[in-house]
Formats: sequence, structure tokens, C-alpha cells
Amino acid sequence: MEGPPFAYREVGEKRGVPVVLLHHLTAVLDDWDPKIVDGLASSHHVIAFDNRGVGRSGGTTPGSVEAMAHDAIAFIHALGHEQVDLLGFSLGGFVAQAIALARPGLVRRIIIAGSGPAGGEGISNMGSVLQNGVAQAAVAGKHPKHFLFFTQTVNGQAAAIAFLARLNERAQDRDTAISNNAIHAQLTAIHAWGQGDPARLSEIQHPVLVANGDDDVMAPTINSFELARRLPNAQLSILPDAGHGGIFQHHAIFVLQALQFLR
Amino acid sequence: MEGPPFAYREVGEKRGVPVVLLHHLTAVLDDWDPKIVDGLASSHHVIAFDNRGVGRSGGTTPGSVEAMAHDAIAFIHALGHEQVDLLGFSLGGFVAQAIALARPGLVRRIIIAGSGPAGGEGISNMGSVLQNGVAQAAVAGKHPKHFLFFTQTVNGQAAAIAFLARLNERAQDRDTAISNNAIHAQLTAIHAWGQGDPARLSEIQHPVLVANGDDDVMAPTINSFELARRLPNAQLSILPDAGHGGIFQHHAIFVLQALQFLR
Repeated sequence: MEGPPFAYREVGEKRGVPVVLLHHLTAVLDDWDPKIVDGLASSHHVIAFDNRGVGRSGGTTPGSVEAMAHDAIAFIHALGHEQVDLLGFSLGGFVAQAIALARPGLVRRIIIAGSGPAGGEGISNMGSVLQNGVAQAAVAGKHPKHFLFFTQTVNGQAAAIAFLARLNERAQDRDTAISNNAIHAQLTAIHAWGQGDPARLSEIQHPVLVANGDDDVMAPTINSFELARRLPNAQLSILPDAGHGGIFQHHAIFVLQALQFLR
Repeated sequence: MEGPPFAYREVGEKRGVPVVLLHHLTAVLDDWDPKIVDGLASSHHVIAFDNRGVGRSGGTTPGSVEAMAHDAIAFIHALGHEQVDLLGFSLGGFVAQAIALARPGLVRRIIIAGSGPAGGEGISNMGSVLQNGVAQAAVAGKHPKHFLFFTQTVNGQAAAIAFLARLNERAQDRDTAISNNAIHAQLTAIHAWGQGDPARLSEIQHPVLVANGDDDVMAPTINSFELARRLPNAQLSILPDAGHGGIFQHHAIFVLQALQFLR
């Protein structure tokens, strides 16, 4: 493999087009919901990885979505895959768009969750939303994802507890937490994406499933509509009473929809 | 009962707050998907009725949504119910909003599907969309709902066939088709609604579940987002690869979400 090594995990039978998972701001391998990974792996080869400079992956996290896409392409090539499906969540959804634009032939189908187009409403505020969420969480003695990924409704908060418990299921071989430098670079990339231009979305001819909760405070839900409107071949799934982590809260419905879409 | 009689059907155990179904343009009792009616009736008392002048109901269909709401309120009172849940589909979703505004105390929870706010984008075109759909259907030798309720994708058209087969399941006691006069009055009401003002949505304090397919040609999907944005206490469910009849195509998911919401 060229350059520093990437940390990754593979689940599911190694056949057909693999599904590569593109992670969110601050996330490492352990932040993927096992319900999503195992659900997709029931009939797909699923690959999660830490992008450059994240978790146990080597190198330095770059400060642009396009460079992250370049790194992800290098990872996919290093594993020897000629075509993949992508599931990008939040920042990973930006990276998925940039991969499809940079190397369309490498991609078969794309799922973009909790994300938005370049220049999308509120995207460049994601850093301050994160900061507020962390502050609220400290006051409340709760994990920040209670505030950032889930609504403050009864269902949302119950889903937060269940989701966080699932992330803690893995007892061994846990990933290394992300560094502050990597988070800083990710925030720089997100801010620039939020100032960007969505016009090139019309060039992405791939089938795309866009999904989100109906009340996302990190990547406001209107951005999912905007993605579906601008992408020539998109479907949209909005999940009720749910936030940024809507696909985790409604994992059973989302996995059904994703498997249907990836057929 | 005051005034001419209403035709209606009741399903499910008669306990708790009943769910009253408010029908779409051109619909009579037989146009409700048995999967939705029976799904809700698994734990709710469900009442479908033909509003004034529709199907076997007596009287004359009025030319405004507000007057249809007035008639629906008269029907609910005539059955002796002091509080109901509403499920309004398309035109029925407009009527649900008007009922909630006119008689808020009569309503507990509201589901609005395939619908939109007064003044919503494309709503006043529903008549010409209907006309085009009927023309396309005549050429193709298919039911208009293939064009009006479902997307032209493989999944959408398969769902159209399955839905139409379900509507034909009832062998006995079928309703009378709607008259041209009633359709004309409904179109007048829809056109006026499409020219209306959505501002009063902020007064509807009820919990509302807004649902639609992601590619509705009759009540464009952006209207569902607009409803959810303007209603103070709304949830939004957008169902992928689906049109106006998205809740019928994705009946299993919709029934789950509706039952969760109506708890």
C-alpha cells in the first residue's frame, strides 16, 4: 500500500461489489452502528476504514473534502477493488460526493446520510453546533451525541441510549480515539465545503439514496431535499422524529431501504 | 343525523380515540388501501367516510376545503365522537388542516399524507396533473393511478399493480363511484387551497405526522417539508422511490410509523 497504512475492518462474505463506509466528523471505526454494519453485511461485503490521520490510520488528515476523497480512493485501490458502493455519513457524505465526481467509474451506487451539498444551509456552522453540543453534554453529564445525533423527544433520547450502548458492545480491539489535530482538519474541510458550490451534483449520474432524520441540527434536513433535488438519479428517505443519527435510530427501516437500494 | 346521510365504514375494536380517514380527490370508500385500514385497525377504531356529495353520501360537495371540513365535523359529531385522530390523504390532508383550525378541541393527533399547505408549490395545478394522468392512462391502457400515485420506476409500477389489486379485493357492498359534479367541486376547492395562505399552520398545536413519497407529482414533495417546517409540532416521513401514493407503496413502514405516532 502506498503511503502510510489505513486501519480498516471488513464484515460479510467477500463477494460482489463491496460497500465502503465513509465516516463522520470525530468518528473512528467504533462509531459505526453495529446494526447498520451487520445489517448491510447480511448480504454485502462491508468495509469500514479510518481515513488518513484518523484513529489508527497513519498520515495527516487533510483540510479539504476533495483531499479526503483522494485518500479514500487510494485506500480502495490499495485493497484492489475496481468498483465499490459508498455509504457516507455526514462528513462521509461530502467525501462520497467528491469521490463520485473525481472517479465516477470507481463507484456503482451511493448512500448519503445526514449530509448535504457543498454550500448547503447551515453546513459551515457544523463546528459551532459541535461545540455547543459538547458544552450541553458536559453540563448534562451525557454523551454529546444525545444532543448532536438525536432529537430531544422521548423517542430520540431513548434511541440515543440504545445507540450508545451498541457502540460500546465491542470489548476487544477497539480503535484509537481521533486526535484534536485531525478534528481541526475535518472542521476546516467542513467549513470550506459549506462555502462551496453544489452545481457539479448534476454530473453525478450514479443512483443515490439520500437519507436523514427529519430534524437534523448538524446537517439541517433541508440539505437532504436539496441533494435529492440536484442529483439526477436520487431517492430520498426522511425518517420521522429523528435527528442527524436518524439512520441509527431507525436502523431496521434504514437497513431494509439500503438493501433494497443496493440490490 | 342532521342533513343528508353520510356513507361510512368502521373497522377495528370500538375503543379509544377513533381514527377518521379523510379521502382524496375522486376517492370513495373503496379507494382506501386495505393494508392501511387493517393495519391501523389492528389497534385503533378506524372510520372511513364519504364526505358530502361523494360516493353514496347525500348532499352536494362544496367548492371549498373549509366547507368540506365543516361537513366532516358534522359527520364526526353525528357519530357522537368528542375527539378523533385524523388521517388525511391529499385533499383529505387539506381538510384535516381546516378541521384542526376550525375545531382544535375535536382533534387529538393528525397524519397528513401526500398533501401540502395552502398556497403550496404546484397544489393549484393538481387538476391539470389529474387530466394529464388520465390521458396518459387512456393511451397506455392502464389505470390513471399508475401515473398519478406511483413513480415510473420498476418499484413504483410494481407497487401500482399491487395497490390496485388490493383495492379490488372487496367483492361485496362496493361504494358508488364519485360523480363528475363532485369532482368538479373538489377541483374548485383544491384550486382555491392552492391560492391560499399557509400562515395559520403555526396555530395548529396538535402533534402531526407528515408523510409522502419522495417524488409526488400531484402534491410535490417539497410541500410535505413545508408543512413539517410550519407546523409547530410535526414529524416528517419521506418514503423513497415513491410518489403521491408513497404510503400505499410502503404500507408496512407507514403503518408502523403511524401506529407509533398514534400511541
